[in-house]
Amino acid sequence: MEEPKQQYSIIVCAHGDLAESLKRSVEMIFGKTEALYPIRFVPGENLEDIKKKLVAVIERYELNNILVLTDLFGGSPYNASATLAFERNDMDVVSGVNLPICIEAVANRTQKSLEQIVPYLQQIAVDSVKSFRSLMTEEEEEL
Amino acid sequence: MEEPKQQYSIIVCAHGDLAESLKRSVEMIFGKTEALYPIRFVPGENLEDIKKKLVAVIERYELNNILVLTDLFGGSPYNASATLAFERNDMDVVSGVNLPICIEAVANRTQKSLEQIVPYLQQIAVDSVKSFRSLMTEEEEEL
Repeated sequence: MEEPKQQYSIIVCAHGDLAESLKRSVEMIFGKTEALYPIRFVPGENLEDIKKKLVAVIERYELNNILVLTDLFGGSPYNASATLAFERNDMDVVSGVNLPICIEAVANRTQKSLEQIVPYLQQIAVDSVKSFRSLMTEEEEEL
Repeated sequence: MEEPKQQYSIIVCAHGDLAESLKRSVEMIFGKTEALYPIRFVPGENLEDIKKKLVAVIERYELNNILVLTDLFGGSPYNASATLAFERNDMDVVSGVNLPICIEAVANRTQKSLEQIVPYLQQIAVDSVKSFRSLMTEEEEEL
């Protein structure tokens, strides 16, 4: 049986070694995956440097329909990715990446298109941030 | 002049080395900070092990009014933190941590109480996850 084809490729681009760290944590839960390309942004680098790293990964692995997950809206990884997304239509950039977003992006890559996964991840962001005390209060109110 | 007192202490507890990595990325943006205690959960450990690590950090640094930021709702770091929060009233646990949440938790620790910061971080989670294409579409519609 042929493996279902993935509909988008995932790059995680973030400050320091956060992207690699997210990949390792995804793998702790999900098992080894090559579906997620981490790119680091280190002190001393500028937008052009990150853009070059992005292009290098995209060309090396011949990626298209690219989802770039970045850490911080308006940060250098986001801004560099956004300038690339201006130039090509098959790319979107999502900020505020967390572990649930990475997991869901990897888990849904054969089922959802790039256009479908983005609003889905925005919903995951809302659903994944829960507070223990708020949940306790809700439960008490239900009793 | 006396430094303003922080109203809560921040622990980040996550799979692999994600907590340390988040701390390093916070420091790239925000400068060196001791306000955030990272705790890792590594393969082979169980809930009791994480709980012991949490207690060790809390006792060593004499923490109270504790905000634990965890990566995944229902994951071991969240569950271990939640069992501790059951036992003490001055502790809340928030899942789905990302870089903006860490930055805002550190930035607001002298201005907001533990009760105030939690709903604020939930709002940050929503606001921090933006998509480049959605923003472009919104801008085009405004023209």
